[in-house]
Amino acid sequence: MRGTVFHGPHDVRVERVADPEIKSPTDAIVRITRAAICGSDLHAYHGAMPAEPGFVLGHEGVGVIEEVGPGVTRLKKGQRVVVSGLVACGGCFYCRRGQPSQCSESGGAVFGYGKNAARNLGWLGGEQSEGIAVPMADYTCYPLPEGIDDEAAVFLADILPTSYFGALNGNIRPGDTVAIFGCGPVGLCAILSAGLFGPAEIIAVDTVPYRLELARKLGANPVDAAKAQDVILNRTNGRGADVTIEAVGNEGALNGAIMAARGGGTVSVIGVFMGPTFEFPIGLAFARDLTFRIGLANINAHIPELARCIERGAIDPRPLISHVLPLDDAAHGYDIFNARKDNVVKVLLKP
Amino acid sequence: MRGTVFHGPHDVRVERVADPEIKSPTDAIVRITRAAICGSDLHAYHGAMPAEPGFVLGHEGVGVIEEVGPGVTRLKKGQRVVVSGLVACGGCFYCRRGQPSQCSESGGAVFGYGKNAARNLGWLGGEQSEGIAVPMADYTCYPLPEGIDDEAAVFLADILPTSYFGALNGNIRPGDTVAIFGCGPVGLCAILSAGLFGPAEIIAVDTVPYRLELARKLGANPVDAAKAQDVILNRTNGRGADVTIEAVGNEGALNGAIMAARGGGTVSVIGVFMGPTFEFPIGLAFARDLTFRIGLANINAHIPELARCIERGAIDPRPLISHVLPLDDAAHGYDIFNARKDNVVKVLLKP
Amino acid sequence: MRGTVFHGPHDVRVERVADPEIKSPTDAIVRITRAAICGSDLHAYHGAMPAEPGFVLGHEGVGVIEEVGPGVTRLKKGQRVVVSGLVACGGCFYCRRGQPSQCSESGGAVFGYGKNAARNLGWLGGEQSEGIAVPMADYTCYPLPEGIDDEAAVFLADILPTSYFGALNGNIRPGDTVAIFGCGPVGLCAILSAGLFGPAEIIAVDTVPYRLELARKLGANPVDAAKAQDVILNRTNGRGADVTIEAVGNEGALNGAIMAARGGGTVSVIGVFMGPTFEFPIGLAFARDLTFRIGLANINAHIPELARCIERGAIDPRPLISHVLPLDDAAHGYDIFNARKDNVVKVLLKP
Amino acid sequence: MRGTVFHGPHDVRVERVADPEIKSPTDAIVRITRAAICGSDLHAYHGAMPAEPGFVLGHEGVGVIEEVGPGVTRLKKGQRVVVSGLVACGGCFYCRRGQPSQCSESGGAVFGYGKNAARNLGWLGGEQSEGIAVPMADYTCYPLPEGIDDEAAVFLADILPTSYFGALNGNIRPGDTVAIFGCGPVGLCAILSAGLFGPAEIIAVDTVPYRLELARKLGANPVDAAKAQDVILNRTNGRGADVTIEAVGNEGALNGAIMAARGGGTVSVIGVFMGPTFEFPIGLAFARDLTFRIGLANINAHIPELARCIERGAIDPRPLISHVLPLDDAAHGYDIFNARKDNVVKVLLKP
Repeated sequence: MRGTVFHGPHDVRVERVADPEIKSPTDAIVRITRAAICGSDLHAYHGAMPAEPGFVLGHEGVGVIEEVGPGVTRLKKGQRVVVSGLVACGGCFYCRRGQPSQCSESGGAVFGYGKNAARNLGWLGGEQSEGIAVPMADYTCYPLPEGIDDEAAVFLADILPTSYFGALNGNIRPGDTVAIFGCGPVGLCAILSAGLFGPAEIIAVDTVPYRLELARKLGANPVDAAKAQDVILNRTNGRGADVTIEAVGNEGALNGAIMAARGGGTVSVIGVFMGPTFEFPIGLAFARDLTFRIGLANINAHIPELARCIERGAIDPRPLISHVLPLDDAAHGYDIFNARKDNVVKVLLKP
Repeated sequence: MRGTVFHGPHDVRVERVADPEIKSPTDAIVRITRAAICGSDLHAYHGAMPAEPGFVLGHEGVGVIEEVGPGVTRLKKGQRVVVSGLVACGGCFYCRRGQPSQCSESGGAVFGYGKNAARNLGWLGGEQSEGIAVPMADYTCYPLPEGIDDEAAVFLADILPTSYFGALNGNIRPGDTVAIFGCGPVGLCAILSAGLFGPAEIIAVDTVPYRLELARKLGANPVDAAKAQDVILNRTNGRGADVTIEAVGNEGALNGAIMAARGGGTVSVIGVFMGPTFEFPIGLAFARDLTFRIGLANINAHIPELARCIERGAIDPRPLISHVLPLDDAAHGYDIFNARKDNVVKVLLKP
Repeated sequence: MRGTVFHGPHDVRVERVADPEIKSPTDAIVRITRAAICGSDLHAYHGAMPAEPGFVLGHEGVGVIEEVGPGVTRLKKGQRVVVSGLVACGGCFYCRRGQPSQCSESGGAVFGYGKNAARNLGWLGGEQSEGIAVPMADYTCYPLPEGIDDEAAVFLADILPTSYFGALNGNIRPGDTVAIFGCGPVGLCAILSAGLFGPAEIIAVDTVPYRLELARKLGANPVDAAKAQDVILNRTNGRGADVTIEAVGNEGALNGAIMAARGGGTVSVIGVFMGPTFEFPIGLAFARDLTFRIGLANINAHIPELARCIERGAIDPRPLISHVLPLDDAAHGYDIFNARKDNVVKVLLKP
Repeated sequence: MRGTVFHGPHDVRVERVADPEIKSPTDAIVRITRAAICGSDLHAYHGAMPAEPGFVLGHEGVGVIEEVGPGVTRLKKGQRVVVSGLVACGGCFYCRRGQPSQCSESGGAVFGYGKNAARNLGWLGGEQSEGIAVPMADYTCYPLPEGIDDEAAVFLADILPTSYFGALNGNIRPGDTVAIFGCGPVGLCAILSAGLFGPAEIIAVDTVPYRLELARKLGANPVDAAKAQDVILNRTNGRGADVTIEAVGNEGALNGAIMAARGGGTVSVIGVFMGPTFEFPIGLAFARDLTFRIGLANINAHIPELARCIERGAIDPRPLISHVLPLDDAAHGYDIFNARKDNVVKVLLKP
């Protein structure tokens, strides 16, 4: 079959790779019908995250079950499923507590980084391909109802649950003001997710006009980053936002999110930081009683409720799709996504 | 001043009554600018709730502070406020726990029933009048920001917090299916309130076409009561609704709400029942693990977040207003509301 | 092998029954090392719950894995486990939400009632026997650490999680006063469970002196039922208990629990009611803002945290054990438990 | 009257100061009967926190109401009260949300630092004195029931609610393992507070044997800091603690608390840090999904439930009292507390 192989920074090629195989009784083979490129795929593409070449990329995909191992009890051949980017068992200490990102069986393995993020599993494929072997398939795949098409469903594999995790971590309550720093794909998804918790207002901060315009269409109040602190104070009687969500992954945005949170508020981080440490303003955080939350999202735990929301129209992530390309054009997809060409937001791939 | 006086069943007259006076240091006098008739005002009007004639009706109103007692610390003359239907101190055991309906100082007193519901307070006016003396004014009045007009604000006095209390009691989670039994004013408000908790779908049940049509406009899926159980099962893979809200106050609707809840679901009651007991299906509730919640809403505790939602446009109750009448036409307002004439939904009075 | 067979009211016999067999890939065979008689076993024994004779009794047991089907992924031969009385899959809509009592795969099946409570499973054994076939074994069995002996562990199969479920449903908060109506085994376990939520005081109500004395030893304030309402009011400044737990299963106790709850409080029912309906005081519940919760406990969801509490000594249910009998004496165990002879509390059986 | 005046680092003198006066209608005068020295008093004493000399120290005290202003509605002359270290109005945006540390009326003012921490209030006395003027007295004083003696009650003024706030922020659930870094007075109080949330085990970390011994008496498992990481891993199957509480206020202890938390766990800080920033391990926190919480405790919001716990014996802080000195010996109290002489834990002062 064909897959999108990482050969090094700025060098991604669609080529023939080994067919997926069932190696453990709880594996399933999924034929991919739609995949997506995620902002975190760019960390390897940039070279910011060192990665040994030769693996298939992609941790967001939707497809059809082709084959199941004898230990798979909840899936059948022919079923449409979303394949979570995160592999988890569903039954360990962590999974039982709703924290599959810490799954002790998979170690919190993620598809699409080869051995890099395969944790306990030794080898993992990527979803930007024609097919994939899915370990712990009963909990890693989620069956899709008819009411969700493939292009909406692919958002369930990572980006939408990640943004939802960020919103949950923010502990948003009805009537709150939420400020989201960053209107890339995950920040835009955070507008949808935060909206599920009844905020009075969502303020979306970025510097790129077409992304702010899309934020506006999704229901947020778009604000240029240069004016963000002032606007947030003005809209909250001088208090600051009840909840701020960092959706970029850089220190400037995170400091902005911390400064913009009101006393007693929460700062929730969904941007991925490359550095090991951050100079945390602990004196300020103490005086202002801040809660600070960060983490790898518990994707699989949140797919069911988000799938229901999409199925019934409560949220619709499809306006974020700027490009749907054939799988063979994956390299072009990486190029425009990385360079922010063509008003790119979310790039889907069609095997 | 003039007020709407209850003279007996089906006999309500606007006439001269005593001017409100400050009797306790924590009282304030509010000049009413807009009031509303509530479904629970009809209980006395029908004769279903026995009431000694001679009191001023009304527990939903908005106005301007005219005078404050020396113990009022948070209000000033000239300030626009909503006057909660529920009088509460804000500082007792119950108020501190967010349960002012059980306030030990006021006893959970409610305006607009004369001595009937005045509990510990001995005497209470009504808000369908030109003015009212408000006990425990610091917590019973809530200052209004400019962004909320009087006609939206009057919903904050009771009906919107009551519906919100019902939604909160339902413990709605994102992705849930919520079924609301009854599309009178409080049921329609419950559509707005339930929407703050991220449901995948709200199913609104009634038998009156124009009310179902309004439910649809507010974002619900309207269903005729005769088909409700089937539709709810169909929309939930045969499980039943995660949360049902009874917003009528009769046994048929409550049994419907209980039958329609899925195993492990919650039934939340906001309709006001006149009888002392209800034949609760305890065997069914045990087998299906039901949570059943009912109570006088903790209005004052929830005004702040709802005010923010209205101020920022997250919810707008004004589509429910079918009539705005001069105060002097209050008797006509009662008549059409009681008889469901003229596609009546919510009747406002303008002193 | 030998098992405790129900032959009719007051007729229970230990006799040879068919050996357990693996019939589905996710089954396991467990050799029972300790079982217990539960209050709900008495419903059939009394004749209060009609039951077709011929099945093996028992839904509380601990043992060792003898054999696992090919679809069992988390258990191994030789492992010590508690066998939950409730069979559940661990992965359906309900199990994912922590509500295995409503499991759509098992239908909420319970061991020890033959076909009566076998729901979707067609046939189920009983744990008062030498061995049992456990369906959906990965989620129905829970591996035991060394720090928990068999006699403490058997409480994890039903009675302790059931009481914990009742305490959770009560939404107990630190500083609360909790009143438990009934000091039979499940009421006594509720003392242990409620204690995990930081109550200021637990008031335990019963009429039997030796049970009240045991309640006192477990840390509760024991009160004779005749004085309960007065004592509860006295101990709460006249308010009533924040949370009441009904642990008997009769109308008198339930009315007592409702009367004793303060305004805004919660009434949680863990007693099993035989009648289909209960005359619920809906007017009182409205005025006093009561939450009423009842249901079949989500046993499997709560075993992990309770096992940790026992392992580390935070709770110890063993003081409830009044008798440990050989399996062959099960009929005697039923007799004394039913007749409340010999200061019986909890009867264990040793195969 | 006499008060404990700060004259500079290591120079504290009990001397005559101005009598307290009612300056605002919501003030009350309290005659102090018992006060305490708090670890955070030492920040000025050390010179670590710059402070202009001349103010009366102390933010922990209990006493009797001597006089109330005309706007005080809930207190009477002669009533015994605890005086919260934190002054708050009880009714602003923040106080209504249970976050009085951010009170917009007082600005989160704290007694005992003169103008330093007086925020919006311009001047504030100290509780290590014969009497104090208490602003916003209705919410800053809490009436004491007879069942709580002065020496237990003084813990309610700050240290016990602060430790409780830390335990609440930890989001401890029944069955959790909690590791507390630091067994000074606030760490020891955290043992009591954490115990209200049903942990399976509390591991208390320090280096001072007599403090570890006291931790053991309060129910914790005491561990020397050098062995803490190993012991915590051993006691949690290699996972780490579900919740860690930092109760020292230094980087070493905080890094220890972060390292010792399991994936998906929470790190709650109650130690007071003097530096403005902390080098936060953001990469680790991301991979391990950590929640990090820090803040000035919402003291007044938590006094009621803790008072109930003390009144009914659920917790007893008095074993922490190592010294009760006459007020005139306050300087000696500061000296031994600062130097950790005489197995000092908590020093009380008796005016």
